[in-house]
Amino acid sequence: MIERIAILGTGLLGTSAGLALRAAGFSGSLTGWNRSSEQAELALRMGAIDSIATDPLQMARSSQIVLLAAPVFAILDWMEQFAGVLGPEQLITDVGSTKAQIAAAADRHFNRPGRASFLPGHPMAGKERSGAAQADANLYRGAVWLFTDDPNWKRSEEAAALVADWRIWVAKMGAKAMDLDAVRHDELVAWVSHLPQFVSTALSALLEDRMGDAPELKDVGGRGLREMTRLGASPYSMWRDIAHTNTKEICDALFALEQRLAYIRENLRTPELRSEFDKANQFRRE
Amino acid sequence: MIERIAILGTGLLGTSAGLALRAAGFSGSLTGWNRSSEQAELALRMGAIDSIATDPLQMARSSQIVLLAAPVFAILDWMEQFAGVLGPEQLITDVGSTKAQIAAAADRHFNRPGRASFLPGHPMAGKERSGAAQADANLYRGAVWLFTDDPNWKRSEEAAALVADWRIWVAKMGAKAMDLDAVRHDELVAWVSHLPQFVSTALSALLEDRMGDAPELKDVGGRGLREMTRLGASPYSMWRDIAHTNTKEICDALFALEQRLAYIRENLRTPELRSEFDKANQFRRE
Repeated sequence: MIERIAILGTGLLGTSAGLALRAAGFSGSLTGWNRSSEQAELALRMGAIDSIATDPLQMARSSQIVLLAAPVFAILDWMEQFAGVLGPEQLITDVGSTKAQIAAAADRHFNRPGRASFLPGHPMAGKERSGAAQADANLYRGAVWLFTDDPNWKRSEEAAALVADWRIWVAKMGAKAMDLDAVRHDELVAWVSHLPQFVSTALSALLEDRMGDAPELKDVGGRGLREMTRLGASPYSMWRDIAHTNTKEICDALFALEQRLAYIRENLRTPELRSEFDKANQFRRE
Repeated sequence: MIERIAILGTGLLGTSAGLALRAAGFSGSLTGWNRSSEQAELALRMGAIDSIATDPLQMARSSQIVLLAAPVFAILDWMEQFAGVLGPEQLITDVGSTKAQIAAAADRHFNRPGRASFLPGHPMAGKERSGAAQADANLYRGAVWLFTDDPNWKRSEEAAALVADWRIWVAKMGAKAMDLDAVRHDELVAWVSHLPQFVSTALSALLEDRMGDAPELKDVGGRGLREMTRLGASPYSMWRDIAHTNTKEICDALFALEQRLAYIRENLRTPELRSEFDKANQFRRE
């Protein structure tokens, strides 16, 4: 059913989606646009898109699916621009990292009679380094693809069919769809995604201060240190938007971890340390 | 030169050392002992040792090299037991995780005329799960093997030759030797090894409290969460000894990270967040 997809943002996630769709047998058109034309050209050379649009609005107008693959604030900007421009037979979906503000904008601008539809989405996949060069047709394989759809939203029959079809393509890309409420989504990812990121950033920054002038000492840490600081390479540009749009939940999660670390620090020589290890072991039980 | 090695403790590290020595061409005898005879029998079946000792003291007496591969307190116990038993032509070395107390015991009991020699060692390799079943001939490949030898220690010619030969075998197992002072060792590993471990334990325990009853939510986190909590599976039995023998340095490192997390939490919406990401990116520059 879906024959014309526009990918707005051919960075890591957008380019990977194009590659994954092609690998899964999508034979329709894949048009792309990126603020940096270099990234768009790279996505084109990689085969993730088959043409580069010169005008993103015109590209969106002539597509059935518009995939917004950009940081959250850029997605919110595009949503405003597309609000009065796209029609009820069109579906916009996204890969934005936080969903409450995007779902609120979707409620404001879309999903009502005469308007285009919007399906908020968030694949739990990524890499610590961004850009089309990092893209991978298998990026979404085995990953959870979260949707925060709202049962109160009204869609045309055509748009409802596009939603159903997009979910099929998400499955074909190898991802497992999971549906939840947008506010609950932001709370959940604060713990399982944002907290690990900010901890890795904090640990990496702290160690850079301690031993940035003695890089040979990093080797001493081995695999454990490498894994615990891998996300330290993540780009500020993407995480700024997440920090701004999920501040309270991230604050709560960080504060809880600070308290947990203090508790461990105060119990390094008491039997309470065993309880903490037992509980951690339980989280990792197989 | 080395022809008879005794491995005291055939868990993950001891059994891996036996396998690695064999893989590197060691053709002498490898005798093993373990508190749990099951672990010793498994090491024997895996080919890491060629015989199981019934009496560890007797085993040590008839070996040139005694490798102590156990948690720190067990190593300290063995050192006391061996103090008056082994002779100046014998070398004891270890793989213990902290070195200040072990080096002090080595100074007290060994490395003087008429006594056996002791070379404190610490390969920066391991897995989050312990036991001979996890052992791997390649565990030490690419890892740093720290030594905290002391230039003031006196050794017989035979023992000095054993030290030199053991270092050659360490290199043949694929590890890179690095020498440093024992106190400096404990400070360094507090940051690059103990801090990552306790952070992973804290994060895993916290998430177990938050979502232990909803294991499907763990899948949402993906690779980042998996990596950041992998060390959460580490055994208390080993980390208790580390916490007890490096308490002050671990306290300092944990407290510094708590402050760093609080700083990030307070700056989620300020430009300071960029500086933290920049510094973290720098730590992970390639």
